[in-house]
Amino acid sequence: MHQKILTGDRPTGSLHLGHYVGSLMQRVALQDTASQTILIADMQGLTDNGHNPRKVADNILNVLADYLAVGIDPERTVICLQSSLPALAELTMYYANLVSVSRLERNPTVKTEIAGKQFGRSIPAGFLSYPISQAADITAFRATLVPVGEDQLPMIELTNEVVRKVNQVAGKAVLIECRPLLSKVPRLPGMDGKAKMSKSLGNTITLGSDEAEIRQAVKMMYTDPNHVRIEDPGTVEGNVVFTYLDAFYPDEAYIQQLKRDYRHGGLADSRLKKILEECLQETLSPIRQRRAEVIDDKARLISILRSGTEKARLETEAVAREVKASFGLDVLG
Amino acid sequence: MHQKILTGDRPTGSLHLGHYVGSLMQRVALQDTASQTILIADMQGLTDNGHNPRKVADNILNVLADYLAVGIDPERTVICLQSSLPALAELTMYYANLVSVSRLERNPTVKTEIAGKQFGRSIPAGFLSYPISQAADITAFRATLVPVGEDQLPMIELTNEVVRKVNQVAGKAVLIECRPLLSKVPRLPGMDGKAKMSKSLGNTITLGSDEAEIRQAVKMMYTDPNHVRIEDPGTVEGNVVFTYLDAFYPDEAYIQQLKRDYRHGGLADSRLKKILEECLQETLSPIRQRRAEVIDDKARLISILRSGTEKARLETEAVAREVKASFGLDVLG
Repeated sequence: MHQKILTGDRPTGSLHLGHYVGSLMQRVALQDTASQTILIADMQGLTDNGHNPRKVADNILNVLADYLAVGIDPERTVICLQSSLPALAELTMYYANLVSVSRLERNPTVKTEIAGKQFGRSIPAGFLSYPISQAADITAFRATLVPVGEDQLPMIELTNEVVRKVNQVAGKAVLIECRPLLSKVPRLPGMDGKAKMSKSLGNTITLGSDEAEIRQAVKMMYTDPNHVRIEDPGTVEGNVVFTYLDAFYPDEAYIQQLKRDYRHGGLADSRLKKILEECLQETLSPIRQRRAEVIDDKARLISILRSGTEKARLETEAVAREVKASFGLDVLG
Repeated sequence: MHQKILTGDRPTGSLHLGHYVGSLMQRVALQDTASQTILIADMQGLTDNGHNPRKVADNILNVLADYLAVGIDPERTVICLQSSLPALAELTMYYANLVSVSRLERNPTVKTEIAGKQFGRSIPAGFLSYPISQAADITAFRATLVPVGEDQLPMIELTNEVVRKVNQVAGKAVLIECRPLLSKVPRLPGMDGKAKMSKSLGNTITLGSDEAEIRQAVKMMYTDPNHVRIEDPGTVEGNVVFTYLDAFYPDEAYIQQLKRDYRHGGLADSRLKKILEECLQETLSPIRQRRAEVIDDKARLISILRSGTEKARLETEAVAREVKASFGLDVLG
């Protein structure tokens, strides 16, 4: 069966190296073998930025520019904007009647996220229920395959629960279940070794970073804190520079050799960082260049997004219409 | 200032005498003095009928027929269908990010309703957050006046909280606050004296009831259980027949006389019921007749609803567009 893939990002900042190895490279590869839609999820971005919508709004075209810069081709991948697809909001409201509050509160991903945020006792209703909105997104595009990290599997589970409930209420198979496409690439840590990578923590390199920023970032990168003198043996595990070399350096055998040398002693952190920096400069240079080209042509960006969103609008409205009709709510056609 | 009124009903059954005295008569009167919109709130009807959407769907045209039967004029009052207005779902999603889960859980109206329903621990997410959806309805029509019962005042309060938050986030007055229009008519009890009146409890008379049904219903009506012999003094307070006479009988002085006679003793329940029955037959006869005329012309009903919904669509989409723009989310115009 031909796979239909839905993926996307919350536009809350420019995309960075973590996105690049974690999902963007996969998307570039997938656009030749599957039918792929990328949703710029600004509505979802608002669920924890309700009081600062401009942060979300300002990053929509940034994220689109990132997509184009890494080689996502709007001729082969539909790129669309969530807030311009009202059918997604409609489906969210229908599904919300089939999912209980306690089911949402049990969601492990949301639980973890809530714990990590500064909501206090004031969790926005929209945040608690964003998995329902995701179920709307996935089903509205009839996605069969959804790229996710391990931690997002509960979202897929909830989506398929919604699918089964809707089909049960409708008395027929209106919606289809989806499968997760688990990334084989381990999540890239921040340059400080922290699991969470974000621009505000200053521990990542965004795709538009210039040469000096990349140089500076690699310079600040964590290595082995016990590797004080060059001749000392160093530790490879948890050494962020090696993690990045593993993720980006094309010649795996060479990295294996470097690891042996480092463990043995005699390989300086500065030398290692120089290799990584060159590698990252080489990776990011063409991306930065393409990004600079597209970001200045705002009219073209908007036209690309509008055209993708138009396609998506027809698709999602058809599904919403079908769900409504299956519930008998097609009184006005 | 010219008032803009939003009112409506959940289409979960045909409308009955309680609706007639509680809101329908007021709406008929208001259509000459204010700009009035009536929303058939099928999306809200689904919030506690998620597993039985056809119950809601099947009552949309019934409720519309009830409106026309009592004299609501689609030329003077916009009648529209909630599920055909996607802007309401969109606004609901924006507002949900500005209202906390605990704020919703504190809502006294929703609390009481949840206690009265059979949700158990499975309160649908859509039900908990229906006050947000109501805020979307009210603001999307720029309503200044919302007819409510005393028990629904917390909904108006929440709506105005949302208005203030949106305006604060937007940095300007995008939305306007509304005021409640409190009904002066006390809530009509069920014919069995119960506060809740519903077709499923069999304690009400729907607007389409035929003569025999009205006769039977009045016959079953609760009076004073201690008024055993005609010559005994009877109690007027809490006597449902008197409550209905108060609500429907046009000659107030005559009812005062009846009350005196009843208290004194010598006025039979059967005589009282006969007076009420005649009054109700007279009230409902023209309504039933008009209802029968309109309910058979399904095409006309649909055309009326479609035309009202089209007007409402333009109105609500304009407000949603304004809210989005004020948040900076007008990237695609």
